Amino acid sequence: MTIEEKEELNKLVRSVEDFPEKGVIFRDITTALKDKKGLEIIIKDFTDRYKNKGIDYVVGADARGFIFGAAIAYNIGAGFVPARKPGKLPAEVESVEYSLEYGKNSIEIHKDAFEKNSKILIVDDLLATGGTAEAMVKLVEKLGAKVYELAFMIELVDLKARDLLKGYKVYTQLKY
Amino acid sequence: MTIEEKEELNKLVRSVEDFPEKGVIFRDITTALKDKKGLEIIIKDFTDRYKNKGIDYVVGADARGFIFGAAIAYNIGAGFVPARKPGKLPAEVESVEYSLEYGKNSIEIHKDAFEKNSKILIVDDLLATGGTAEAMVKLVEKLGAKVYELAFMIELVDLKARDLLKGYKVYTQLKY
Repeated sequence: MTIEEKEELNKLVRSVEDFPEKGVIFRDITTALKDKKGLEIIIKDFTDRYKNKGIDYVVGADARGFIFGAAIAYNIGAGFVPARKPGKLPAEVESVEYSLEYGKNSIEIHKDAFEKNSKILIVDDLLATGGTAEAMVKLVEKLGAKVYELAFMIELVDLKARDLLKGYKVYTQLKY
Repeated sequence: MTIEEKEELNKLVRSVEDFPEKGVIFRDITTALKDKKGLEIIIKDFTDRYKNKGIDYVVGADARGFIFGAAIAYNIGAGFVPARKPGKLPAEVESVEYSLEYGKNSIEIHKDAFEKNSKILIVDDLLATGGTAEAMVKLVEKLGAKVYELAFMIELVDLKARDLLKGYKVYTQLKY
């Protein structure tokens, strides 16, 4: 995207203090998504970056990763695969556990989601500590596919997720 | 979509028996979404139907409604608004409660999601009993906006959701 578009998008993200808990500034993307120009900037930028790259599947993380993932997949002529919270997928799944600040969580993909050696783009709204992103990389590789790149609308730079994702290409539209 | 496309899409939906509980046949759309032709048929059909209709916002239901909602919004030049499960949206919300088979649930939209009299398309993957759909209609109207139509990929006809949604236009791609 152009510098002007980045500035415009940046203005459309709302910062909400003390959500989900005291002392946290939550970057609210709903104000950018509801703006038709904002939505266009986001999706067009991802589309331009990933079209004609031979990507077979876009994997989106439950739930906000679905917002970008399916639109990108459609635009670049790939399939869309949802990575879901436990218990949501009806067929046989591969599962990876990851740590949260307090406790653990896991994320699942259908075992037959893609063929071995498929080229995968992983998409989510936010790159924070990188825990979910790392779990998604592991899931994709467990199924014998290859991660082409990870794409996020927003990166919280101080949380150093890129250290965790060393060796993988990471693209983010806005940095805080 | 053409009859051929409908047949193709129909073949791509996987039926999983006894999910989420015994005796239920779950219509699994992930097998259609991961197929690039399947995804194209779904999104192109919705796009053709809703472009140039003056729709201001597409509201998608948490979580699978996000898959279709944002892609449609981008394609028709509208904004995208997520309707979310409780506690997910950071700013002030409007909330509507609805009944499930066992117990209750509620769904939320940001109070500033759209301007009064905006023209809204409501999108989700599945029209079953219509409980969530009816709650979303109420949410939209509480905020002073107007429902243009409700769109779903799949309709479970026996559950008679259209009775609950009488007076509203409902479009579904596949009926079971």
